[in-house]
Amino acid sequence: MITESGGSVADLGEWGVIAALAARMPPGPLTEVGIGDDAAVVGAPSGSVVAAVDMLLEGRHFLLSWSSAYDIGVKAAARSLADIAAMGAVPTALLVALAAPGTLPAQWALDLASGLAFEAGRAGAGVAGGDTARADSVLLSVTALGDLGGRPPVRRAGAAPGDVVAVAGPLGHSAAGYALLAAGVTAVPELAAAHLRPAPPYDAGPEAARLGATAMIDVSDGLVADLGHVAEASGVWIDIDSPALALGDPLASAAAALAQLSRTTAADSPASLPLQWALTGGEDHSLVATFPPEAALPARWRVIGTVRPAGDAPPPGKTAPGNASVAERAAGAFASGSVTIDGEPYRGRGGWEHFT
Amino acid sequence: MITESGGSVADLGEWGVIAALAARMPPGPLTEVGIGDDAAVVGAPSGSVVAAVDMLLEGRHFLLSWSSAYDIGVKAAARSLADIAAMGAVPTALLVALAAPGTLPAQWALDLASGLAFEAGRAGAGVAGGDTARADSVLLSVTALGDLGGRPPVRRAGAAPGDVVAVAGPLGHSAAGYALLAAGVTAVPELAAAHLRPAPPYDAGPEAARLGATAMIDVSDGLVADLGHVAEASGVWIDIDSPALALGDPLASAAAALAQLSRTTAADSPASLPLQWALTGGEDHSLVATFPPEAALPARWRVIGTVRPAGDAPPPGKTAPGNASVAERAAGAFASGSVTIDGEPYRGRGGWEHFT
Repeated sequence: MITESGGSVADLGEWGVIAALAARMPPGPLTEVGIGDDAAVVGAPSGSVVAAVDMLLEGRHFLLSWSSAYDIGVKAAARSLADIAAMGAVPTALLVALAAPGTLPAQWALDLASGLAFEAGRAGAGVAGGDTARADSVLLSVTALGDLGGRPPVRRAGAAPGDVVAVAGPLGHSAAGYALLAAGVTAVPELAAAHLRPAPPYDAGPEAARLGATAMIDVSDGLVADLGHVAEASGVWIDIDSPALALGDPLASAAAALAQLSRTTAADSPASLPLQWALTGGEDHSLVATFPPEAALPARWRVIGTVRPAGDAPPPGKTAPGNASVAERAAGAFASGSVTIDGEPYRGRGGWEHFT
Repeated sequence: MITESGGSVADLGEWGVIAALAARMPPGPLTEVGIGDDAAVVGAPSGSVVAAVDMLLEGRHFLLSWSSAYDIGVKAAARSLADIAAMGAVPTALLVALAAPGTLPAQWALDLASGLAFEAGRAGAGVAGGDTARADSVLLSVTALGDLGGRPPVRRAGAAPGDVVAVAGPLGHSAAGYALLAAGVTAVPELAAAHLRPAPPYDAGPEAARLGATAMIDVSDGLVADLGHVAEASGVWIDIDSPALALGDPLASAAAALAQLSRTTAADSPASLPLQWALTGGEDHSLVATFPPEAALPARWRVIGTVRPAGDAPPPGKTAPGNASVAERAAGAFASGSVTIDGEPYRGRGGWEHFT
């Protein structure tokens, strides 16, 4: 068993790499057949399996100069595990596909495995299988599996007018951390950490299901964009109450630190940056769900908005169009799929389109 | 719904790409939640799920100049689905992660989806989810899920001395097809097709489990290499009976066609090439299994060898060391994990190591 190595993954060879990675990535409690056979076998006690896959590509989703191998392992695991939690399921296992240059230090691969194993363990899961290949850059594709415990899945469709919108986990922390890292600012290091190693509240997913959540999604593309998916799938309009976002001191400190560098513009003033991060920043992988208004929510579920019927009139006190014209509203700003902020259409950058 | 497009995937945008791909890739009969939510939900009626992931990378596993998008879809699906069958399980669903340049023609992505859907359907499965990203080259990572129907998985460990070794599906066809394509030879087109679009006999996997298979693997790295994994995991020695491989006319025709081009060397003569392809060629994804000697095997399971106890003496008539010295044999040629051909150690290229 290799625990430390000064060589490259090519020196280890494929089987050596697999053995070394496997030694760092224990199986979870439900793994019946783990790494080393044609396929993994993982318990699915409720008779169905929840499964999601996410890719993490060097240069696209991470930079080797910013992220340690451990960070990348954590992030790759978190992205897929959060999708399982967002269905209301308990994660059970990961399958990890890794492509990398043959010159990649073996120690880097071992540290990656440690990060994957840490985050899988934080979710109650383990690593049950994978694949390796050689490529010019580092590519990860992580499949997460989970179990619903007999509950129906909480889907994107299901939000009903009158429901409240609540979030568990931070908003905008990853985006603020990214901005700090990009500017070379070392202030508020917990935000950089949140960008490099997101920590989704996995157990909030099954908790939401038990609390009667009508719809749920993890915030991977940004709150507005992801609530837009919920609104569209549910045929509703969702209004976010911005004061309820409770953005907190870290985001304000980050915005102030960036302002001192004169890296901000009028559109990105210290006053507006925290809200912009919270509304459009992805990759926190917090969970946002809709609940019937009578649901008794634990404190970590912060109510941040309400679900409205599609075609609903602007809310009381918001009949003044603000920065949206009456024509714009009539044209669909409050149609099915709309997300508004305090009754106003959101005018900022919306989300993240992978191919454009 | 997009059915034909002259544009690029960037023109479609991420959601457009996903919608277009989803329209070409129907879910399978056990898919409860398919493409379009945070995660898929797939039936696992026996209370556990079999899962495997395989990557297919442009330039490494396929060339855009050789393979059509449809071919690549078939191959990517087959690699992962064969792993499920090799555990004795019935495939239920695929999750497809696709990274590609934004300039990739949308039609190419649609044809890829058609290939994935065709092969998933041939296995009785469907496409339940996936992920997309932008990258400089085409990258696929396909996760396959399956169900054991209440049977225990057929693992690599389990082959016992006295068992017979049997194979379902062709051997060496993909390797021969690769050689023909590389040489620009258009003879024996069914072999090029076998390389571009492998067609594993998925239902032979659960069949083998019902017939009492003690160990099984799919031939992805080559017969000698893959039986080596079985022999090592099982603590046995496996002897292949080369006449029983029944290599057939297509391989002989391919070898003859290559010989006419003077592309063969003494080591790669027309007489030796078919056996070399059958022993070391991977990617046919045929299934090779070990069975108790009393098992009544249907015709498609061709008996090609026997399982021997580790440390066994050379078989009768093979006491002459041939091209292996007595010292070599004593040093482990017949030790646990060995694979021999007609009682002789195999001296050719063995298999495929991804990082070396």
